[in-house]
Amino acid sequence: MSNPITVEVSRGDLVESRHHGFLSVVTSAGKEICAIGDTTTRVFPRSAIKVLQALPLVESGAADALDFDDAELALACASHNGENVHVKTARIMLMKAGLTEDDLECGTQWPSRVEDIAELVRADETPTGLHNNCSGKHAAFLGLARTLGVQTKGYVDASHPVQQEIKTVIEAFTCEEVTQDVCGIDGCSIPTYAVPLKGWARAFAVFGTGEGLDEDRLAACDRLFEACVSEPFMVAGSDRFCTDVMSAFEGRVFVKTGAEGVFCASIPELELGIALKAEDGATRASEAMMGAVLEVLLPDRNEAQFDVLQRYTNPPIKTRRDVVAGEIRPTAEFVTALHEQLS
Amino acid sequence: MSNPITVEVSRGDLVESRHHGFLSVVTSAGKEICAIGDTTTRVFPRSAIKVLQALPLVESGAADALDFDDAELALACASHNGENVHVKTARIMLMKAGLTEDDLECGTQWPSRVEDIAELVRADETPTGLHNNCSGKHAAFLGLARTLGVQTKGYVDASHPVQQEIKTVIEAFTCEEVTQDVCGIDGCSIPTYAVPLKGWARAFAVFGTGEGLDEDRLAACDRLFEACVSEPFMVAGSDRFCTDVMSAFEGRVFVKTGAEGVFCASIPELELGIALKAEDGATRASEAMMGAVLEVLLPDRNEAQFDVLQRYTNPPIKTRRDVVAGEIRPTAEFVTALHEQLS
Repeated sequence: MSNPITVEVSRGDLVESRHHGFLSVVTSAGKEICAIGDTTTRVFPRSAIKVLQALPLVESGAADALDFDDAELALACASHNGENVHVKTARIMLMKAGLTEDDLECGTQWPSRVEDIAELVRADETPTGLHNNCSGKHAAFLGLARTLGVQTKGYVDASHPVQQEIKTVIEAFTCEEVTQDVCGIDGCSIPTYAVPLKGWARAFAVFGTGEGLDEDRLAACDRLFEACVSEPFMVAGSDRFCTDVMSAFEGRVFVKTGAEGVFCASIPELELGIALKAEDGATRASEAMMGAVLEVLLPDRNEAQFDVLQRYTNPPIKTRRDVVAGEIRPTAEFVTALHEQLS
Repeated sequence: MSNPITVEVSRGDLVESRHHGFLSVVTSAGKEICAIGDTTTRVFPRSAIKVLQALPLVESGAADALDFDDAELALACASHNGENVHVKTARIMLMKAGLTEDDLECGTQWPSRVEDIAELVRADETPTGLHNNCSGKHAAFLGLARTLGVQTKGYVDASHPVQQEIKTVIEAFTCEEVTQDVCGIDGCSIPTYAVPLKGWARAFAVFGTGEGLDEDRLAACDRLFEACVSEPFMVAGSDRFCTDVMSAFEGRVFVKTGAEGVFCASIPELELGIALKAEDGATRASEAMMGAVLEVLLPDRNEAQFDVLQRYTNPPIKTRRDVVAGEIRPTAEFVTALHEQLS
């Protein structure tokens, strides 16, 4: 089954580029109420499920034992820009676990923004694991390993107790068994498991509502949801979809992007979970798709909420002199399908 | 008509992302011998046709009047990384025209590579128009304007004599009329005209062979071809497809990438022109497509030529600790179609 063109990029009066995509919306009861494209396709969720990967930390009591606050828990769920506050917070998380950046096994990465690169250069420094967009998640993994009393070295391996805990969470939330043949290695060296897209939508419906969860797991979901929506800057950073949308919606939505065009969301007030992927892996397309589905699902928006979705759903394409030359926009076909299935 | 999936990106044992694309190969006589996807779709060529945009400079005698050497002519056809040699050469081109970077109307851009950003920061500088990947092309436009004796200000506007000259070249090489309704503004502020993809393939067949051109235009094509293949570093820079492929093929091919997944090439020994586009605009896909078609068309390759195409056609996807997690590869369907149509 071929996936439809969901996003197009214009220049002048013409469409210059086109993105195919697929999207699933599932209720907390597990019913798929919207399927665009082939939502049975297995998708590596990449960083979009960091909040699920952080669940064992909270549920086990390790987060309390380590005295992690909301900002630190949000960073555990983050793909951050490597801005100062992200780097500093990751360092403190490691300190609380009695560890240092030398224990990180995520690899190094330059910050996303040129101003942060410049600041490192001016200080005559090069990036460390703390600057890796996944450093908060890895600090959380290390903290969990310490609290569990298992060795920290090799915490990224699929066989390590920390990764085994996460695999159990993924299977429970998606209602899918994950086996070694659907396991890939993520950019930060941990396992990533491909599950049908609608399984991820289900997982985020459950995450946002707690439907069917026992008390400890429900409390852990609530705590992580609250941490992310109350500290959205920690989840991404300056000029980022996740930060700006969660800020504007003040707790109404949880959203999280992942590499290769994946995006997941929870909308507790509607008891829905959303998962989508731009087939080609483009973030500009996954952002426009997520913006479009939020516009359809949340028509009751204040001005800030209206503006932030507009900004990411339909951004201009500009020249290097800041003149508008075109735009990114969801296709009419995609928006119509969303309205038909979700109204 | 839907375009086929031409490139896929794997992770572990699964395909993670997929790119659709279309491709045309045309002879110097104007016959399309390979059409994959809808090659009648109008495509903004973006930077892939810089060599055609440089033609009036050479054909008019302006390049000689300004004493531009091969490296400078290659930079006129470049989408460069903003490395030192690119910036320095663009500055000299402007000096030869009696102008400075203040005359550039392309806008500023940070260099592509973090090491070059760091060098600017260490010198306490910010990027200028000279660092814009199009600065050589713009210096050439300014040089032509000076030699023609027209005003330099506004040389990026569609109505300026320099842009009118280029429009005439585009119409002649593509055998397509270009009107205002297919005109967009490129990232560097100049007009870009959308022409059916096969028109661009035809243009590059003509550029590489000179078929049907008068003596002056033929000589200008030869000079620009030679400049680019003898100074390939100026056309792009470190770790770039255009530079590495033109270096390895030692004059057998001219290749040039453009924004939004466009790629054009000339193969004089086969009297062929190639134009392709990754529908979603991804460079990783356009590079794999161009690598694949060159592999099919040029089976007689030495070791360096074999290696360079392999490197760009089928690159690994790595973790941030440099472990291979997957690969980018042309799809079997695409490679089969290439063999069927081109053998």
